[in-house]
Amino acid sequence: MPKIDGARLIADLKRMADFGRYKTGVHRPTFSPQDVESRHWLASRMEEAGLEASIDGIGNVIGRRPGDGPRLLMGSHTDTQPQGGWLDGVMGVLYGVEVARAFRDDPALAGVGVEVASWADEESHYMSFLGSKSFVGELSEADIDATRNRDDGTPLREALARSGFAGRPRAAVDPARYVGYLEAHIEQGGYLESEARRIGVVTSIVGIHGYRVTFTGVQNHAGTTPMPIRKDAGVALVRFCNALYERFAAASGPRSVWTVGRILLEPGAPAIIPGRAEMLLQFRDGEPATMARLEGVLDQLVAETNQSGPCPVAVEVLSRTPPTIMDDRFQQALAAAAEVHAPGNWMAMPSAAGHDAQIIAHRLPAGMMFVPSIGGVSHHYSEDTDEADIVLGCQVFADAAARILEAARR
Amino acid sequence: MPKIDGARLIADLKRMADFGRYKTGVHRPTFSPQDVESRHWLASRMEEAGLEASIDGIGNVIGRRPGDGPRLLMGSHTDTQPQGGWLDGVMGVLYGVEVARAFRDDPALAGVGVEVASWADEESHYMSFLGSKSFVGELSEADIDATRNRDDGTPLREALARSGFAGRPRAAVDPARYVGYLEAHIEQGGYLESEARRIGVVTSIVGIHGYRVTFTGVQNHAGTTPMPIRKDAGVALVRFCNALYERFAAASGPRSVWTVGRILLEPGAPAIIPGRAEMLLQFRDGEPATMARLEGVLDQLVAETNQSGPCPVAVEVLSRTPPTIMDDRFQQALAAAAEVHAPGNWMAMPSAAGHDAQIIAHRLPAGMMFVPSIGGVSHHYSEDTDEADIVLGCQVFADAAARILEAARR
Repeated sequence: MPKIDGARLIADLKRMADFGRYKTGVHRPTFSPQDVESRHWLASRMEEAGLEASIDGIGNVIGRRPGDGPRLLMGSHTDTQPQGGWLDGVMGVLYGVEVARAFRDDPALAGVGVEVASWADEESHYMSFLGSKSFVGELSEADIDATRNRDDGTPLREALARSGFAGRPRAAVDPARYVGYLEAHIEQGGYLESEARRIGVVTSIVGIHGYRVTFTGVQNHAGTTPMPIRKDAGVALVRFCNALYERFAAASGPRSVWTVGRILLEPGAPAIIPGRAEMLLQFRDGEPATMARLEGVLDQLVAETNQSGPCPVAVEVLSRTPPTIMDDRFQQALAAAAEVHAPGNWMAMPSAAGHDAQIIAHRLPAGMMFVPSIGGVSHHYSEDTDEADIVLGCQVFADAAARILEAARR
Repeated sequence: MPKIDGARLIADLKRMADFGRYKTGVHRPTFSPQDVESRHWLASRMEEAGLEASIDGIGNVIGRRPGDGPRLLMGSHTDTQPQGGWLDGVMGVLYGVEVARAFRDDPALAGVGVEVASWADEESHYMSFLGSKSFVGELSEADIDATRNRDDGTPLREALARSGFAGRPRAAVDPARYVGYLEAHIEQGGYLESEARRIGVVTSIVGIHGYRVTFTGVQNHAGTTPMPIRKDAGVALVRFCNALYERFAAASGPRSVWTVGRILLEPGAPAIIPGRAEMLLQFRDGEPATMARLEGVLDQLVAETNQSGPCPVAVEVLSRTPPTIMDDRFQQALAAAAEVHAPGNWMAMPSAAGHDAQIIAHRLPAGMMFVPSIGGVSHHYSEDTDEADIVLGCQVFADAAARILEAARR
């Protein structure tokens, strides 16, 4: 059985958190200088682990194992949310590097091994799952041309050029090369903690729908325009949003979640009636029927608002990702490894967050494993996981990988 | 009677609109490069009109009349709202320059005259009425130290230094020097147009209260945090804002207006539950009792929200300006001049917008005059006024100034 080195793993995680450190977390948006620097450092760690590392034309860092024999691909992402946590994504990538080292150092595992990837921009600074989409062949050159940074509008082409990745070939999956794909991640929620379990074996990844909802009013002076004749896009947005919260609460399933993460009024000055307003809406559920029901509520409210006026509303679909079921044999391997290292202390559970595994699953069998998030917190610099849980998780992950590869060798 | 030159006035207005032109309007925020450049150009036009021009330590451009005799101060502002109109503020300043030329060219007016000011930052990029407050002695050095740009946080000190105005003396009003202050402005509303009048004689300027309302939640992952345990600052803001709109509609007077011009959710990403949210609220009315009633509604809703939770709300008062009555003799002079040049086509009316005149009125008798806004539009690049109305307004303004100064000479 491969034996991971917990201290070596933790040291790598801490070193990685130096790139873009923000308070106790990390601010490392995709293709920021800190992100680019961290990719080069990661490539050097992959080389040190005995892999042949390269960074491809979309920013994916991939460490390939020389020689023949069955291979398991492992990975996650190393970009972060704005002012995000130190483990979200990174932990899964460095688990891969640590497992690669453990396989290299175990003579019983000669002839099988792991390869490791950091997929670019899982966190959607330019496009959700940019790197994994590229790898599975779901990102065209035209898509790249059309993509811009969600915050400052920088074209993706410009960011790639500035990062030094433009013009490089983009890595593409060869399904014959891999037994499958395995991804580890922090849970990002509080289920493991509240159930006092240390390992989560993921059964499926929730579907996510994302929308931009835009209201068009008439910009005018906030003092001289009488209330009855105003067409205030901000008022329209607030009324719409308030109604949506109430209707979603009535239509949702027990695990549904919905969030308005951004509201923008234009031009955004205290003495000007907003002429345009937009909000970013996202909702998630594991059940396709519930997803369809929530989308129906949204469409109905849009239709009613456009009928009643005074500000027209338009909806743009930003993403519509269905739920993804994880490979059954991979779930069994993870469960068996968890039962060895944490007997009775693991559970099967859905993922309430999206992950690169749902994209890679389009071309390879895929599995996922969770470790607990303290207080269920993530997407915030205070995100953390007990060090003992981080180390335990990596050992379970290595053991599961060995089980999957041994089964493939037979 | 002074005779203004309409073509010369229009040419100046059009030249001024070149500084920061945006579509058919102007984008010239205070102390932007375009704003600074326009102040130097304005000073040169004042010199050409026979005034001694200087720019003071807060960015006020002041043209002083050499010699003795009664003086009337005229002015307004030349900074603009973001993507604002070409006449808002600027017209009143260039009326002053044109009237100065008309007085200079009329031998009957020897011994009296006008002085002209462009007050810095009427539009609140740093502080409402920054320049006029400085002129009347209501802006301390500590106030300047503490002031920052409302959009990007640039310290005012830094902006003054970059503009080349830091270290210059700040002009201060000498009440003995002036008969009073007269300001012309576009109406910015639709009352003149709907009543088919070409001149408005302002009776009073409305009071304005401005607030920042801040909600504190808990930032977390938008997929993995179940709805019942969320503390979403954005949801709290939307509910509060929706309730406020309804309660204000019930408590307001016939001419009350209220506006939420900006909403900000932090960190503002689609997959993060907002941990903090803020909105800028402003309301206006000519009646002190109505202003107090609206503030009471706000305070009551804040108290209820803090009692019910889950996100605490805090209110910061940004401004609390009472209504200002215009000088009675100045109203009469403007009315008499309007009756000569536009018989039956003028009206007395309150100003629904704030103006530098309300600040200068703290130290000098003050009057104001309006010309119509096409469609009542302002604070938008499409803002406009019929050229004939612009020229007529300047002639009325010059005539009223002559009447006020002749009365002072007797």
